Amino acid sequence: MTTGGGEFDLIARHFAPLAGPQGLNLLDDAALLSPQPGYDLVFTADALIGGVHFRPHDPPDFIARKALRVNLSDLAAKGADPVGYLLTIAWPIGTTSQTIEQFVQGLAHDQAEFGIRLFGGDTTVGPGPLTISLTAIGQVPAGTMIRRSGARPGDLIFVSGTIGDGALGLDHPEITALNQRYLLPEPRLTLGQSLRGQATSSIDISDGLIADAAHIAKASGVCLELDLDRVPLSPEVRELISADPSVFARALTGGDDYEILFTAPAANRNLLAGRASEIGCVTPGQGVVLSRKGLKGDPAKFGLGDLGYRHRFGEGSA
Amino acid sequence: MTTGGGEFDLIARHFAPLAGPQGLNLLDDAALLSPQPGYDLVFTADALIGGVHFRPHDPPDFIARKALRVNLSDLAAKGADPVGYLLTIAWPIGTTSQTIEQFVQGLAHDQAEFGIRLFGGDTTVGPGPLTISLTAIGQVPAGTMIRRSGARPGDLIFVSGTIGDGALGLDHPEITALNQRYLLPEPRLTLGQSLRGQATSSIDISDGLIADAAHIAKASGVCLELDLDRVPLSPEVRELISADPSVFARALTGGDDYEILFTAPAANRNLLAGRASEIGCVTPGQGVVLSRKGLKGDPAKFGLGDLGYRHRFGEGSA
Repeated sequence: MTTGGGEFDLIARHFAPLAGPQGLNLLDDAALLSPQPGYDLVFTADALIGGVHFRPHDPPDFIARKALRVNLSDLAAKGADPVGYLLTIAWPIGTTSQTIEQFVQGLAHDQAEFGIRLFGGDTTVGPGPLTISLTAIGQVPAGTMIRRSGARPGDLIFVSGTIGDGALGLDHPEITALNQRYLLPEPRLTLGQSLRGQATSSIDISDGLIADAAHIAKASGVCLELDLDRVPLSPEVRELISADPSVFARALTGGDDYEILFTAPAANRNLLAGRASEIGCVTPGQGVVLSRKGLKGDPAKFGLGDLGYRHRFGEGSA
Repeated sequence: MTTGGGEFDLIARHFAPLAGPQGLNLLDDAALLSPQPGYDLVFTADALIGGVHFRPHDPPDFIARKALRVNLSDLAAKGADPVGYLLTIAWPIGTTSQTIEQFVQGLAHDQAEFGIRLFGGDTTVGPGPLTISLTAIGQVPAGTMIRRSGARPGDLIFVSGTIGDGALGLDHPEITALNQRYLLPEPRLTLGQSLRGQATSSIDISDGLIADAAHIAKASGVCLELDLDRVPLSPEVRELISADPSVFARALTGGDDYEILFTAPAANRNLLAGRASEIGCVTPGQGVVLSRKGLKGDPAKFGLGDLGYRHRFGEGSA
């Protein structure tokens, strides 16, 4: 933590207790990590901006936990065990001490839940919305990180959990089960770690099922054929689709799922039963092909040509 | 890089060329690093916000390079060799492609200069000012990181370069040499690495000489006695002080120096000659004591009770 002015007090009081020995209790310029021999390190960084990635009035502890969890979700998809994280925060002018306390309590809760510590970072007050940038560090036994690029024709396609709950929780905050999924994604760390050596490729679904399938297809140089009739849906999402069939498209492209989409050889089908839903197969070619109720074609044929967007509101283009 | 919508094009076109093999060309969820056996890793993260840490109309390539360099400066102070970095950027709405190109050119320039690559990150458009968060990763031979906490009574105190140029460059953009120091700090990587095994403690001066001396004093549990008559000053700063003696206080507390302040046993004095200026000694006690023209006392006695602030304008308190 390199800091200035009134930040010193803030850090000492709130953030230093979150730091472990590697973070040198935030009393140094930098954190120190002696890597475990035989392990590779895995790094990922994502920023969350108020009004873009979360609702400005979401509870501060949930915002903090979401910032951590969306990054842990990337580690999960790579099969990594989380080790620690660095955090920079720009607080809006006028942020109260109570808000900061709640934010820190959220981090403390999830640090305990996921067995990680704060390594370092920076807090400042700025003129914009609350902006949180988080770098997560994980580790995998050397050579076992699951990439996006390993899918091969003949592999099966699997997805964990249920799809669409996060995006529909944003649309329907009155439906508690869905709103909870939007506020507090569940990084699939145990599943991800169990996929080392079993999955050929993997990604966490942040941009939407179809878009993230396209990312695997592109990185692997293959075609992902998804059977939309087999996409796992929660009872709440099924009910919304019954009332308005167009909601199905939103579920497939809305993002914010933080489930794991992965491919694995057909020989591993029995091993994976009960851990994820089988939703398709990998074929030669390029891109994504969808099938539903006997129809088959590219996403545009199903009105899904706009392949997902992660940020529901406030996002422009640069 | 976990991204959405129009970001894909942006990343592919501008940022992917900055990524190395560890960044998997930004085509995966995470970066992979196989640590070099016998080395510790060093992590630091700092955010820069438009209107707080840089002037909104500073050239985009200089803003990018400053974001990188202030983090490399932390690595330098720890004696670390830089390895790579992760970057999240919130662009203001309406940012032009030309601005982004210049920003990326700045990164490319400094990546080449410092021998590092982009590992990953995230770009978004948000409603606030340009906000850049950067996590830098360095390495040191195991056990050799220079901490803040190793200063011992009897050690001498040294500082690299000249003090005050950055803060006075912000105050006087018309003085080219000073403005350049503000825009483009020089991380003292070669010096820092040469101090491994020679310095007992070290910090980079971001908050101002006096405040950062206090950080070493606190972490080490000692007193740092600084001889203000020996603080190295550039000709430009000397001239400003001649015209207005109060400028000296600004030089000592303004921050943005990114020089290295370190302590070393007196036995190393000859080794260190020519690499840094000797400006004092470590004594038993606590805090910072200053002397000037025969007077001696705590910083308040010299009108320096407000121990430095890093962010010249726009900073509130939280």
